[in-house]
Parts: sequence; C-alpha cells; structure tokens
Amino acid sequence: MNAERLIEKKRDGGVLTAEEIRGLIEGYTAGDVPDYQMAAWCMAVYFQGLTAAETAALTRAMAASGPRADLSSIPGVKVDKHSTGGVGDTVTLVTAPIAAAAGVPIAKLSGRSLGFTGGTVDKLSAIPGYRTALSFEEFIRQVREHGIAMAGQSAELCPADALLYALRDATGTVESLPLIASSVMSKKIAAGADAVVLDVKCGRGAFMKNRKAAEALMEEMTALGTAAGIRVIAFVTDMEIPLGCAIGNSVEVDEAVEVLSGGGGQRLAALSKTIAGAMICAGEKAETLAEGRRIAEAMIESGRALDKLKECIAAQGGDASWIGVRPLTPQDGAYDVYAGADGYVEDIRPVELARVVMDMGGGREKKEDDVDLTVGLRLWKEAGAPVAKGEKILTLYGRDGLPMEALARRAAAAVRIGPERNVFPLIYRMADSREA
Amino acid sequence: MNAERLIEKKRDGGVLTAEEIRGLIEGYTAGDVPDYQMAAWCMAVYFQGLTAAETAALTRAMAASGPRADLSSIPGVKVDKHSTGGVGDTVTLVTAPIAAAAGVPIAKLSGRSLGFTGGTVDKLSAIPGYRTALSFEEFIRQVREHGIAMAGQSAELCPADALLYALRDATGTVESLPLIASSVMSKKIAAGADAVVLDVKCGRGAFMKNRKAAEALMEEMTALGTAAGIRVIAFVTDMEIPLGCAIGNSVEVDEAVEVLSGGGGQRLAALSKTIAGAMICAGEKAETLAEGRRIAEAMIESGRALDKLKECIAAQGGDASWIGVRPLTPQDGAYDVYAGADGYVEDIRPVELARVVMDMGGGREKKEDDVDLTVGLRLWKEAGAPVAKGEKILTLYGRDGLPMEALARRAAAAVRIGPERNVFPLIYRMADSREA
Repeated sequence: MNAERLIEKKRDGGVLTAEEIRGLIEGYTAGDVPDYQMAAWCMAVYFQGLTAAETAALTRAMAASGPRADLSSIPGVKVDKHSTGGVGDTVTLVTAPIAAAAGVPIAKLSGRSLGFTGGTVDKLSAIPGYRTALSFEEFIRQVREHGIAMAGQSAELCPADALLYALRDATGTVESLPLIASSVMSKKIAAGADAVVLDVKCGRGAFMKNRKAAEALMEEMTALGTAAGIRVIAFVTDMEIPLGCAIGNSVEVDEAVEVLSGGGGQRLAALSKTIAGAMICAGEKAETLAEGRRIAEAMIESGRALDKLKECIAAQGGDASWIGVRPLTPQDGAYDVYAGADGYVEDIRPVELARVVMDMGGGREKKEDDVDLTVGLRLWKEAGAPVAKGEKILTLYGRDGLPMEALARRAAAAVRIGPERNVFPLIYRMADSREA
Repeated sequence: MNAERLIEKKRDGGVLTAEEIRGLIEGYTAGDVPDYQMAAWCMAVYFQGLTAAETAALTRAMAASGPRADLSSIPGVKVDKHSTGGVGDTVTLVTAPIAAAAGVPIAKLSGRSLGFTGGTVDKLSAIPGYRTALSFEEFIRQVREHGIAMAGQSAELCPADALLYALRDATGTVESLPLIASSVMSKKIAAGADAVVLDVKCGRGAFMKNRKAAEALMEEMTALGTAAGIRVIAFVTDMEIPLGCAIGNSVEVDEAVEVLSGGGGQRLAALSKTIAGAMICAGEKAETLAEGRRIAEAMIESGRALDKLKECIAAQGGDASWIGVRPLTPQDGAYDVYAGADGYVEDIRPVELARVVMDMGGGREKKEDDVDLTVGLRLWKEAGAPVAKGEKILTLYGRDGLPMEALARRAAAAVRIGPERNVFPLIYRMADSREA
C-alpha cells in the first residue's frame, strides 16, 4: 500500500478499490500512514468525492478498526438513534426514555458538543452525579436491568474514526458528504445496534445547509446501514431555526423534562414523538410509524417515559430529585429580554443564538475546551408566535463577570419580530430501509 | 493566525491576504502549524489555485524564511540558472563554465535528482573528489577567485521551501503551478542572484506535460522574479524526448565534456549554447541574445569553457585529469543494444529510459535513497537520425548482478525505429523580463 499513490489517484478523480481503502485505514490506525498524508487524502476526497462503493468500503474499514460492541446478551431488537447535529436539538434526551419505556432496549452512546452543535454527553453531564463514562460491562448490565443506558462514546470502538474525525476537524475536511456518512455509520455499526433511526438536520443551523445535500446524506447513510445489515429509518428535518426553545446544556435537560411531562417547545415535542415512534417501530414494538407515535404519546401521558428518565439518571449515579420540583438550571444568573415591537416571531437565527451561548462559555471551539454546563438561553416565544411589545421573549442564563447586556442585545437581534406570520416546516422527508 | 480557517478559505475558493500567507509560512517554519494542516492547505491549493498576488506573497514568505545569500562581495552581475527538470538535461554542467569563461560570475547552487529527473549535485558527485558541500564562505571565495562555483543547495536558505517541498512530495501536491513557481523562485531570490535564466521543460519527460501549462509556469516565474527585482530570461523547451544522449550521472558529465569540446548530442549542444548566451546577456557581457550565443560558441571553440570546467573541478577538490583522456564512466559494465530494423529514429520515450537507469540504481524514488553514480545509458542515434539494422543504437552502463538483458530490452523498446523521419522541436518560447 503506497499512500502517496492513493492520494494522487483520488486527487485525479480515480476510484479506489475496497482493498486500497482498507489498506489506507489500517495503515492510518496503525500509525504507518502519517496524519499529513491522510489530511491530503481527505482534502482530495472533499473535492473529488467517493463513489457509493468507496464510501461503503471506508465505513467497513473504520467499523473494523476496533472491536464491535456485542449487545447479544441484551434481549430484543436494539435500536440506536443519531442526529447530525443542530441547535436546540434535545431529541435524544426525550426519545431514549420514551422508547425504553415502550420496551425497546436503548444502549445509547453519544458524543460531545463541538462548534455550535450540542452534544448529548455534555447535556447529561449537567445532571449532578451523572456518570457518562461507563465500562462496557456496566453499560450492558444497566441496559439489561433498566432497559436504558446513555453514556459517552468509547474511543475503543472505531479508533480509525476517532483519529480521522479529529484530523478532519483541524484540516477543513469536515464538510464532505461521504466522510460524514462513513463516520456516522461506522460508529453505529461498531456500536452493535440492530436498527438505527437517523435524523439528518438541514438548514442554517446544521452541517447540511440545503435539502439536496441533506437528502443525499440521508440516502448515503441509509444505504451504508442496509449494506451492514442494519435497518435504518431516516428523516430529513428542519434546522433553519432552532428545534427546541432551550440552547445550552442544563437548560436543554430542563426542556427535555418538560416535553416528557407533556409540555416544552411544540417543535421539539412534535419531532421527538415522531422519532420516538420510529424507534419503537424499529424496535418491533409497533407495526407502523403511526402506531409507534401513538405509543410514544401514551408513554408521555402515562408518566412512564419521565419515570424511565429518572430511573436511568439514578442508575448512572445522578441526582433526579429535582425533577418535577425545580429546574436544573440555576436561576440566579437569569437575564430577561423583552420584545421591542408588536407582531409575530418572523425568524430565529440558530447559529447566532448558539454563538451567544458559546460566548457565555457553554460550548467548545476545540475538543479540549472546558464547557460551563449551567449557562444557556431559553426562548419563550416560538417561531410564528404572536408577540406584544414588552413581552418577555427570551432569558439568558449567565454568570457573574459576563457582559450580559451585550449578549442580550445579540440574542435579541437573532429573533426578528415583524408583521408576517410565517410557516416553519419541521419534517422534510422520511425513508425506511425495510420499505425500500 | 488560524490555520484551519485559512485552509477552509482556500478550499472554498477564497483569496488569502499577504499577511495570512506570511503567517501560515512563518507558523509552518516555526513548527506551530503542523504538517497535516499544511498538507490539507496544499491540496486545497492544488484544486483552487493561487492568484498572482497570493503566489507572490508565498514566494516572498518562503524566501524570507531564512537568510538571503549576500553575493555583494562578488563584482559583476551574478546570474543564476534553473531548469524545471527533465531527462538528459545536462545544460547546467555545460552552460555554467561557458558563462564563467565569458566573465559572468557563476555562483550556482543546485539540487539532487528526484524521480525520473536528474540533479546537478549528483552529477558533480560522480567526479572523484569533487566537494558539493561548501561552506558559504568557501563558496563565495571560490566565485571571487575562479569566477565559478557549483555546490549543493544549503538547507539554511529557504527552510520553508525545504520543508514544504518534502511534504508536497509525500502528499500528491507537487504538480501545482503556483506551488512549483513559488518553490523555484523563492530559492532563486534567497540565493541572491541579480538575474536568472529559466528553462521550463515541457512534454512527457517533464512535470509540465503541455505547452499551455509550461507557458503559464514560465510567465508566473518571470513575474515573481520581476516583482523581486530580478531580471528573468525564460525559455519553454521540449522534453517530449530526452534532451541529451546521456542519461545517468557520470555519463552526463561525459556528455557535458563532449559538448564543451565541440561535440556531444546536437540537441543538448544547441540548447546549451542558447541558454549560455542568455546567461552571458543577463550578466551584461553581451547586448543581445544573439551576441551572447556567439560568445558562447567562441568560448567552446577556444577551449576556454572546458578549461573553466577543469578549473572549477580542481578548485572544489575534484580530479579533472581524465578530461580529454578517457571517459569518466567505467566501460567494463557496457552492454550494447543494436537496431532491429532499418529506418529512422521515430521516437525516444524519455521516462521509460530514465526508469531503466533508475532500476539500475542510478536514481532515487525517495530523497533518502542511495544513488549509484556510475550507471547510466548512452544513445548513439538522436531522434530523427537514420539507422541501419544491426547498428549500435545505445549502450547501457551497468554493473555485476543487474539483469542487463531485460534492461536492454526495455531500453530498446523506448527507441522506436520506423520509416518516418520526424521533426523534433527544441525551443517553444522565450521571454525576457527586461523587454516586457
């Protein structure tokens, strides 16, 4: 395997064989192919793309770079769920307990926040005592005993992807459809699930800015899952505006609790019910997506989903006593923002709001950055809602020493109020590999 | 300076400021920007190109990454010469003594062979005792005392280029016009010459395969030189077929001696006289290129150019006693190849012949490879020449243990004999920055 020749082949628009791609990934994982050659190859892929066969070979090679998690000791159809990342995307925290309450075993490994996108592991870390780092044995035992575990990704699974993702992040090669698809699906394959529900975000607040790219990514990932023998139910959903009303780690936990209690933001609640329904359907606890959704709603109404979240938190050493009593987020740093005019919420810009939270310390520019889990913001008016001048439209949860007035001005500027009552789409497309 | 942002900017077709490029190169030279980021940037440049202003900024930044050689203690207009590299390109060994004999001070720093292209330093190393590694003080003193010195490039000049060239070589990013142009011209600027004669090779045996690319490279390098206050006389010359009749290190020294004695291959002799004439003109020892060429021919006819070569060899500790007595190349490994048919030499494929010499050990695939300086091959019929069946067309100079028969078959296959008497162009274009 001559890495330089493989770089040139891809650079010149050639198609690599499965053998060549496996050699490249094995060499990279073993340290024989240096970062600089892999970086040049990734940039060549950025410009020349990969064929479906190349992407499948890359996915297989990365999934095979470490052990595949063995979930066979857990009875039932194991369902994983993945979002490509967005702003106010608290869907995992809502859907995992719903599906678990409905009898679908949930063995969920999640990532951390990066850039303007949140990460489930950071959100869970906002819960006092919650242990996101479980040994694989603890993780499996918890799923068997409680039907749910939510922990951080292990570097042991898919080491090639861990290396490659960090490299891409530093070399301007994140935004490549085949590299994104193979990164996601190699992790899902290595994580050992039987089925996966994918939520491909699309719009200003997502990696995929337009529908064509998002649909292509959805199709690519569905094909990769199917090729690996995994059932995939996939959605392309809107990220032109934030999904939930909460942005930040502990505030998103609060909104998840609200949705599981029958409240919370309407968009977040609606999408969570649909995705939880898909998970229930993929877990073979419902025949159709519609039936799955009805079961999801019943799990919320009966309180069983919220109980399941509490059970999961307790099982992982966390404090669940605040749930139903008070919000998790400290209220002493609250800074309210009021509407300057009458009208409707015409637009909410997601990245601008996420940047405000990042500038409060609530996100990370680089993987090694520390995150303040208590800061965040909460919208009190959803997109399309009527607003009267002087009404509270959002609250920032900051802390001493932050320039709250300036931050509030920036947040307010991201929420446009005007005379138009716009309609905001939520779900663009759905695909089920079983029906394809 | 955020390297990742600069990679993305170039990737997306943006134009970097001179400040940004300087930051990148300074960071890279200092070790703050890692190889993998620089590799990704180079691949982005491969696809998106650089504007003239970006290329100029890159050239300046690389030239400034080390000290600029101070040739001011040498009287006269100092002229450098550069070829982009080809097969049988012995022009430097011929032209440097001619121009020096005509009174142009020659302070020549050269590179080593890489891939199928030869390097002047390796050729000089084939001369017993010749020291290619001179201290800068020795180098300058020799030019002052003898009017000529030919030594190896110092890593001290242009360290950024040395780093970047090695990186590009390993990452499939050599063949980028602005990266080639800036690499060459930054070294020429750092080497301190007042004028430079450029020979841009064009064809199968060169980096630039077609005239359009070669002319673009010529224009780019001429502009870069002019911007740095250096007069540039540039040529685009043919490399569809080998330039000289000798390919290999010691055999090329032999052919250089032959040309300086009034013989040698006709193409090599013709181009060498033209380029030596340009060097004499750039060194202000002739008013016009035509006058320069006449002076060059006179230096050969009078024997002064050959004497200057002997003087240079002796000054650098080499043995010149064989010149005019016997060839430098050992003749005991000679293996002759004969024509299988009557006709004309219709074609000579340069890379195939260079590969034969490399496979005898006469070249290097990687910078750290050892080279056997005694092996090579010699064509006895130039392209277009008539040949009778059974006539000797070439000789391989090998050594014990090499599969000479198989090598000879490959060499013979690279020389096509047939009924057509083709015409082979030599010089495609010339430009003089003084006349632009």
